[in-house]
Amino acid sequence: MDVGIIGMGKMGRGMAASLARAGHTVRAWNRSPEGAQGIPGVTPVATAAEAFAGDAAITMLADDAALEAVVVEGGLLDGGGRPSVHLGMSTVSVALAERLTAIHGRAGIPYVSAPVFGRPDVAEAGKLNIVAAGPAEAIDGAAPVLDAMGAKTWRYGEDAKRANAVKLAGNFMIVAAIEAMGEACALSESHGVPGAEFLDLVMNTIFAAPIYKNYGGAIAASRYDPPGFGLSLGAKDVRLALQAAEGAGVPMPVASVLRDNLIEAIAHGDGAKDLAALAEVSRRRSRRG
Amino acid sequence: MDVGIIGMGKMGRGMAASLARAGHTVRAWNRSPEGAQGIPGVTPVATAAEAFAGDAAITMLADDAALEAVVVEGGLLDGGGRPSVHLGMSTVSVALAERLTAIHGRAGIPYVSAPVFGRPDVAEAGKLNIVAAGPAEAIDGAAPVLDAMGAKTWRYGEDAKRANAVKLAGNFMIVAAIEAMGEACALSESHGVPGAEFLDLVMNTIFAAPIYKNYGGAIAASRYDPPGFGLSLGAKDVRLALQAAEGAGVPMPVASVLRDNLIEAIAHGDGAKDLAALAEVSRRRSRRG
Amino acid sequence: MDVGIIGMGKMGRGMAASLARAGHTVRAWNRSPEGAQGIPGVTPVATAAEAFAGDAAITMLADDAALEAVVVEGGLLDGGGRPSVHLGMSTVSVALAERLTAIHGRAGIPYVSAPVFGRPDVAEAGKLNIVAAGPAEAIDGAAPVLDAMGAKTWRYGEDAKRANAVKLAGNFMIVAAIEAMGEACALSESHGVPGAEFLDLVMNTIFAAPIYKNYGGAIAASRYDPPGFGLSLGAKDVRLALQAAEGAGVPMPVASVLRDNLIEAIAHGDGAKDLAALAEVSRRRSRRG
Amino acid sequence: MDVGIIGMGKMGRGMAASLARAGHTVRAWNRSPEGAQGIPGVTPVATAAEAFAGDAAITMLADDAALEAVVVEGGLLDGGGRPSVHLGMSTVSVALAERLTAIHGRAGIPYVSAPVFGRPDVAEAGKLNIVAAGPAEAIDGAAPVLDAMGAKTWRYGEDAKRANAVKLAGNFMIVAAIEAMGEACALSESHGVPGAEFLDLVMNTIFAAPIYKNYGGAIAASRYDPPGFGLSLGAKDVRLALQAAEGAGVPMPVASVLRDNLIEAIAHGDGAKDLAALAEVSRRRSRRG
Repeated sequence: MDVGIIGMGKMGRGMAASLARAGHTVRAWNRSPEGAQGIPGVTPVATAAEAFAGDAAITMLADDAALEAVVVEGGLLDGGGRPSVHLGMSTVSVALAERLTAIHGRAGIPYVSAPVFGRPDVAEAGKLNIVAAGPAEAIDGAAPVLDAMGAKTWRYGEDAKRANAVKLAGNFMIVAAIEAMGEACALSESHGVPGAEFLDLVMNTIFAAPIYKNYGGAIAASRYDPPGFGLSLGAKDVRLALQAAEGAGVPMPVASVLRDNLIEAIAHGDGAKDLAALAEVSRRRSRRG
Repeated sequence: MDVGIIGMGKMGRGMAASLARAGHTVRAWNRSPEGAQGIPGVTPVATAAEAFAGDAAITMLADDAALEAVVVEGGLLDGGGRPSVHLGMSTVSVALAERLTAIHGRAGIPYVSAPVFGRPDVAEAGKLNIVAAGPAEAIDGAAPVLDAMGAKTWRYGEDAKRANAVKLAGNFMIVAAIEAMGEACALSESHGVPGAEFLDLVMNTIFAAPIYKNYGGAIAASRYDPPGFGLSLGAKDVRLALQAAEGAGVPMPVASVLRDNLIEAIAHGDGAKDLAALAEVSRRRSRRG
Repeated sequence: MDVGIIGMGKMGRGMAASLARAGHTVRAWNRSPEGAQGIPGVTPVATAAEAFAGDAAITMLADDAALEAVVVEGGLLDGGGRPSVHLGMSTVSVALAERLTAIHGRAGIPYVSAPVFGRPDVAEAGKLNIVAAGPAEAIDGAAPVLDAMGAKTWRYGEDAKRANAVKLAGNFMIVAAIEAMGEACALSESHGVPGAEFLDLVMNTIFAAPIYKNYGGAIAASRYDPPGFGLSLGAKDVRLALQAAEGAGVPMPVASVLRDNLIEAIAHGDGAKDLAALAEVSRRRSRRG
Repeated sequence: MDVGIIGMGKMGRGMAASLARAGHTVRAWNRSPEGAQGIPGVTPVATAAEAFAGDAAITMLADDAALEAVVVEGGLLDGGGRPSVHLGMSTVSVALAERLTAIHGRAGIPYVSAPVFGRPDVAEAGKLNIVAAGPAEAIDGAAPVLDAMGAKTWRYGEDAKRANAVKLAGNFMIVAAIEAMGEACALSESHGVPGAEFLDLVMNTIFAAPIYKNYGGAIAASRYDPPGFGLSLGAKDVRLALQAAEGAGVPMPVASVLRDNLIEAIAHGDGAKDLAALAEVSRRRSRRG
């Protein structure tokens, strides 16, 4: 298939590589042009509009602001490109998903929200878990594209924003797991058990899941640089989850604790570290004066 | 080996069966005598004192009060029985572990805290994860007994209470995981995604760990009866974790949220249900008037 | 002095009446024209631009959106009116105050943030507490206007947004006081002491302050209609406080609890009731199933 | 009347002085004898039993443990002294009040819970607010004694523990007010407004109540030594409030935040400072790294 991809950060590059490897024709655009270069089988293009065409156009940008800048303010939908489907794979707000659904509807271009679980190495391997919602026909049509990037596409119906709600709920659970490890380590350590020894047990038994091994390993080693997933990004996702919940009348008290603690972590200079550094908040609070 | 076991609830019975199956001689006592009966190779005895003897004596009782009643108020240490080691396998407070360490020290009987992770079926299968701390020699000596009950014995040094801190920290993480699932489901459901469909994704991908599958399955099905692990017991464990943390100068804000929500769950009549019913608190709070 | 006032809700009407009573010439505009009518000495005008002129122009609108709609989108600063000072008296975000400061600076019109503490009857009596920040000369020049509306003008320097931060911090404290009363009443009631009898004590002794008497009286009587200050407005102010704090690196855990509980109150149908209805959340959570 | 008083800390001494000044005959006992000396008209006695006699016996001790040590373990009720009423004025748990009610019932001595609001200088001035519950006749009979110590006796029926619940609910509200001031100051300060200037406004207007002036003044000046009311004592009272609430099925989320933050304050060395030092937790969390 003929695929365009807009946004070639670490995730976008991994996805583009998977697409090319699977035999798709891939055009790629990035704000800073070098981001789109150097991937075998991927053709850099000069404008986002050139990528917004073909059998599927993918956007994989940093946040709401970046996606709005390109799609809405950039006038992408008025540019003449008419991809068979726009796969919005960024982690963005439910509100933006609703807005994009509306304006794509007016433009007559199917919009599918398709955020993903998985880090850049998983994207590179084509093993992402893709959360998709939008017009069924459009998702069906994009199956070869989605299959090239993901281990599985999890479908949540026709209403695009549902995929964003699922993605945010999942990311909330990740941050909650890190906070729980942080508090549990502080408790263990206060009784003489190093956090690493405590985590070794739970990560390998009752909590033997990727998320715990990944972040738990970082906490055990107090290894937060370079970041795999930045703490500030995690804070952004918790904020988006809280906003989505508030709009729908759902209180999330643990998410509120996460928000408070992430603010504290950022205030103490850890915003650019790995999200696992959230665990240091519990340690610092427990320290004796 | 010659082993006595005091406390034949579901867990104790499973452990006794594993011990007998491994070829140990097992004497068992339970407050209500029928609890100790009917397990091949396990001999019921009439008093706790008769079980408190041999190569190892195990206590597996419901809570601090039950353990204190038998060991301290019941005068078990003055009864003439002198087991080579007392393996305290109940989930009890750090404070009680310290107290038991002291009084066993005076009585000259080695005390080892050895609480476990695993439900009754895991105990029955001899596949528990055992968290042990206490005199190294005593733990070494009890290895055949521990190996009969557990998949692995995780050792945390000579100070018995450390094992209790680790157990409570682990149980806190379990309750935190349930609460996170509850809040995440409420968020998903408020956007039209059934909790079961959301959980299907996370339980089988980034959170593919026993705890999530077990409790997530119950939440997905709103199936809280009969309880696998009772909500009131979970509330007790969170309380013990908070007490242990407070005593050591450790704030645990997520544990505090769990405590509040468990109180609400009990106030609404769910104390005897499975701990997974904690997730209903989030659903109820989000319901429209 | 010649004063224009934009926004004639309950607060604006009370302020306009105080201004007229003090001998000022008052022009008033309201989106729905009848809002500006019927106050002796106050002249309704047909457009916001007509009110944005003279010795001082006052805006007293419901929220950020309403203020932006009139001032920014409505092009008020481009309309030819050049009041000596714009007194922004609405309770709005710190971010909007910064934005208004910037665009007023470009337009060459002094902008003063001057939100108030006090309900409509206090505005009517000219006894508000006014929180002012902005160019000192502009505040000095507006003194006769401020004095007509307020018991006292509290000044916080030249940076307008500081007044908004103070106002939001104060409103946060009000909501926190209500929540504390709600939890305290739930505790009292659970031991057989009616909330009204508990509040009678604290409101008349250690907490003998207007806020406690006002909201405590409503809680004691479970009297939430008609609202003096609506619960949804309180939720808005807590949200603005949290946003201002987040932007400045300040975690506010009690504010987070308030946010969660206000969401729950609104989800249960109490958004249009008096803010005191927040206390019902504690009662409902404690009720037996 | 003939009054005995057990426990001559700062509060007890002030109360004894008020009693003597009102013309009552006062016998006083304190664990360290010098505590009972040097008050005109107050006769030190050598044993608690000697003070536990007459028309009224008052206990005013530090906490549950101290009260239990003297009354229960000390065998005060078996000592032959038969005061017409025992006024338990310490701030203790609801559970202990229930226990004391039961054992006094068996001993045939009326027990009245009568904790107080007010600091030592208020006790000295005889202007306490006394919260009383217990047998009506016993409270009536003790009126001259209560009136000598208090500005008013607030009565909450025949069930003694109700007075304790009210006292704990009130103390919870005090700590909540301090935390709210702390968070509000952190918000103000992050926008350039010194906490003292913010507090000056709210303490003198909408929150013009003794509690705010007292603790707000300390926060404004960062003046936490010597303590008027120690932070560790406040932590104890919040713990007792949470226990009373938990026992009665009442979640108190703000109290949980207070508990966490008080633990952090103590962990950072502020346990012996004034309770107002709780506000420093918010400042510290907001500090930049």
